[in-house]
Amino acid sequence: MTATDPTQLSPTALSPIDFYFDFSSPYGFFMAELIDDVAARYGRSVRWRPYLLGAVYKLLDEKPLPSKPMKGPYSVHDFERSARYHGLQCRIPEAFPVSTQHAARAFYWLDGQDADRARSFALAVFRAYFVDGRDVSQLDTVLDLAAESGADRDTLRVALGEEAVKNRLRAECDAAIARGVFGSPFVFVDDEPFWGVDRLPQIERWLETGGF
Amino acid sequence: MTATDPTQLSPTALSPIDFYFDFSSPYGFFMAELIDDVAARYGRSVRWRPYLLGAVYKLLDEKPLPSKPMKGPYSVHDFERSARYHGLQCRIPEAFPVSTQHAARAFYWLDGQDADRARSFALAVFRAYFVDGRDVSQLDTVLDLAAESGADRDTLRVALGEEAVKNRLRAECDAAIARGVFGSPFVFVDDEPFWGVDRLPQIERWLETGGF
Repeated sequence: MTATDPTQLSPTALSPIDFYFDFSSPYGFFMAELIDDVAARYGRSVRWRPYLLGAVYKLLDEKPLPSKPMKGPYSVHDFERSARYHGLQCRIPEAFPVSTQHAARAFYWLDGQDADRARSFALAVFRAYFVDGRDVSQLDTVLDLAAESGADRDTLRVALGEEAVKNRLRAECDAAIARGVFGSPFVFVDDEPFWGVDRLPQIERWLETGGF
Repeated sequence: MTATDPTQLSPTALSPIDFYFDFSSPYGFFMAELIDDVAARYGRSVRWRPYLLGAVYKLLDEKPLPSKPMKGPYSVHDFERSARYHGLQCRIPEAFPVSTQHAARAFYWLDGQDADRARSFALAVFRAYFVDGRDVSQLDTVLDLAAESGADRDTLRVALGEEAVKNRLRAECDAAIARGVFGSPFVFVDDEPFWGVDRLPQIERWLETGGF
């Protein structure tokens, strides 16, 4: 547990933070609202990596939290309380969770052109779902949000039908799982894994001290 | 989200905090080391309530975290990192998790005589297991620890064979589950439920503001 002056960190230590999430995850949404600012305070950038939590659930034979007895009702309560704790708005939509492959594919397509645009789009998807209650599982909603972020709607519509775009998301999901990602949000600082938005204080301590 | 002066809280608002845990839970151990001090800062006492997480797992068809693929290795890493984060010692024993009914029964027997002695015993059990690596599932270890806390070893040994003592723990487990408790630690501030030691910042905010 050695305190390190962040300005003295080696270039390797200042590699980007990897942030994995599913667009249907409220805790992923909270992390999306918070992680860039935390990272920036320690001279780090963030690589946003949407993936499909459903792929992990299938592998682990798990169910989404809200469908579990006891944990389900608690979780919905905790989602909304945690939002208030972080000073964020969040109302769990009636259709929850939803499938998010259109949004995740659109993200990687946008990311290939402009990482900042992709990030704006990702935040717009989260807010559309958890603040405005829009159904972000729908292709049209995803296209609208991408267009609002500056993408060409028709070009994106065509791209989302292409095998290469579908394969890209499959490869990202496989890579995430191979790295040990099993939840949302899931963050790596260098190779140190952190699961959950409630690990933000530990992430911050890790960034500050270089490990503890 | 109204800020409340803690000195202005009604007597009802200052009822004890309920703290549910299983003696085999590392996150329960961390909370045990921390909750009394946090509560005291807001004029609250804590009612310690050991129960058997196995009863919940049976009901929910769940397995202990360490036996789950992906989550298992992460969790063991997170247990030890979270201990360091909180400035605590913790080494996950080779036999983990273990059954804790002897310790929980002894707790309630002690609690009927002297709540402070029961609390000291509980902390001693946690530390014996997670710091010293002793097998707290064994009756003899439990009796030793109770004796070190000031209990009469032979009287306790007889008591732990009695139906009334077994029924007391059964009733506590049933009551916990009926209240919605499904994890360790699980804390109620008044009727507000908080699952996990990572909810400590929210618990603190809740105690400070009377709810948010």
